[in-house]
Amino acid sequence: MAEPNMISYEALLARVETIFTTVGVLPAAAKAVAKVIVAGERDHCKSHGIYRLEGCLRVLAAGKVNPEALPEIHDAGASVIEVDAKGGFSNPAFYAAREVLVARARKHGIAALVIRDCLHFSALWHDVEALAEDGLAALSMCPSYAFVAPAGGKEPLLGTNPFAFGWPRPGAFPYVFDFATSVAARGEIELHRRAGKPIPEGWAVDADGHPTTDPEAALGGAMLTFGGHKGSAISTMVELLAGAMLGEFMSKEALDFMGGTDLLPRHGALVLALDPRVFAARSGRDPIAEGEKLLTAIGAQGARLPSERRFAARAKAMAEGIALSEAELAQLDRFERLGLDALKA
Amino acid sequence: MAEPNMISYEALLARVETIFTTVGVLPAAAKAVAKVIVAGERDHCKSHGIYRLEGCLRVLAAGKVNPEALPEIHDAGASVIEVDAKGGFSNPAFYAAREVLVARARKHGIAALVIRDCLHFSALWHDVEALAEDGLAALSMCPSYAFVAPAGGKEPLLGTNPFAFGWPRPGAFPYVFDFATSVAARGEIELHRRAGKPIPEGWAVDADGHPTTDPEAALGGAMLTFGGHKGSAISTMVELLAGAMLGEFMSKEALDFMGGTDLLPRHGALVLALDPRVFAARSGRDPIAEGEKLLTAIGAQGARLPSERRFAARAKAMAEGIALSEAELAQLDRFERLGLDALKA
Repeated sequence: MAEPNMISYEALLARVETIFTTVGVLPAAAKAVAKVIVAGERDHCKSHGIYRLEGCLRVLAAGKVNPEALPEIHDAGASVIEVDAKGGFSNPAFYAAREVLVARARKHGIAALVIRDCLHFSALWHDVEALAEDGLAALSMCPSYAFVAPAGGKEPLLGTNPFAFGWPRPGAFPYVFDFATSVAARGEIELHRRAGKPIPEGWAVDADGHPTTDPEAALGGAMLTFGGHKGSAISTMVELLAGAMLGEFMSKEALDFMGGTDLLPRHGALVLALDPRVFAARSGRDPIAEGEKLLTAIGAQGARLPSERRFAARAKAMAEGIALSEAELAQLDRFERLGLDALKA
Repeated sequence: MAEPNMISYEALLARVETIFTTVGVLPAAAKAVAKVIVAGERDHCKSHGIYRLEGCLRVLAAGKVNPEALPEIHDAGASVIEVDAKGGFSNPAFYAAREVLVARARKHGIAALVIRDCLHFSALWHDVEALAEDGLAALSMCPSYAFVAPAGGKEPLLGTNPFAFGWPRPGAFPYVFDFATSVAARGEIELHRRAGKPIPEGWAVDADGHPTTDPEAALGGAMLTFGGHKGSAISTMVELLAGAMLGEFMSKEALDFMGGTDLLPRHGALVLALDPRVFAARSGRDPIAEGEKLLTAIGAQGARLPSERRFAARAKAMAEGIALSEAELAQLDRFERLGLDALKA
């Protein structure tokens, strides 16, 4: 029997979708955005679950995202496909272009999707996981807001710049990683500040570029990348490939454009899709079976694969439902009843 | 006036090329291999400079690399181009395919080069730097020998798996990074062992998977990736994309194939080339000028860009010549006079 606050995936999806259509988001976009939000909740990625609803409604209320945007695909039959989100959310744009991206990767071996001018709030694993389900290896990356200093520097210039990768597996779930190239999320520093607790060393520098464990000084200084100069190099690559190369915002311009970090950022994103069957063809080997040799060997020595916890949470949620707190349910009710007016309460 | 042991880039190139042709390597391959070795020396990357000569001669003497291999290009006009190194060195294969890779990236926006069955000993920056000189953004990666445990594991399974990226700049040098996804190079642990010094924490685990600072225990255990689970995920991605996906060796199979680490490894490599002009076209922005905004801002806050030291060494070497020690010059003489017989001395 379900716990009192258990809700099924399907029921939560319907409720979140309704919230978006109620505030004027077009049905296809509402479906796409609801899908990634509820997937986050289902996978127990709470920071990308229904927690994001308020942020989405706030950019809608601020007029900084277009609820009626119709993604526009530009495709000349080459290996680079573009989808212009027209100032709408990123997810409807990705799903609108998914089919042509997959077809092109299968035909040419490799294809790239440029997402232009989108409001970006979701994790990147949605994109690479969808492509892995279609049998493709995939990379996804995007800038964010300039919070992070380059290695050896002291001023925020790079975003927390997520980088994600997916690889198809024969079983239920693909191999997927998706991480920020910063050591920590900005929200974690904020939580330490509120709790009056020091942050771990290595997370940030103060305004003078000195290492700090004081969350206040960190928020006034700059966050650091994971992995020292190597992580900093990868974060710089993300700015160049998913910002400069596309002619879309890099993290500094995204921050200047929104005039602060109160609202979700607007920028572009880059997705690469590769068909292992095309790449392996001349070898006579099965690339997926080869990949399994590595992935099962990692598991066999007791190491955890990225996303394993997320997939376990998903399996549980699909079988037993998604557990929501009273406060979360009350917020859903409020958003359903009041729409954008709920933000005024 | 030149110091006694100064040698010009051109003179060193000619000598190294002669050493390779003398031992039976075909002229085009000798030129390509000499070029990357002397470039390493010129850029003061000593571990990839003429130090590598002995390793190359040893694989030749062992019959584990084919000196007469003629790279074979397989190109069906799609976005994936293959070059079969036919058991020869990787560099001649890359240079043989460079032109078609560049042309294809310019035409399709993105293209991939699969290098098959090559003896791989050079840094990856050569490839991405060459493509950046042609105005392309580039990624390069390959497996190596299984020395590194995945995060949370204890047995060597991943290689030191280098990952490189290049981005064109208007000035003399592009933006280039190239690093091992392991924390340290295996050679550094070996140097600590010989010196009887402990290695830093975080470099390795012993055979039981416990953190160790004992170089002996580290060599009998496993090295670790940079950046914890994030670096481990990237290293796994390199195995999958540049090993399994190509139907070429992953690091474990490369090690099994060579029967140990005394000889340089044989495996494949993956190079991706992207044309920023194609990607940015619809934005109306100049992607290279946009990239400069970030790269000059990094420099302006006193942070160093990757490869800066290497480019400074290069400028100095091209102006003043390359400084070699007596022992290095003596070794060049010996290799020139004796060819593979020099290894017996």
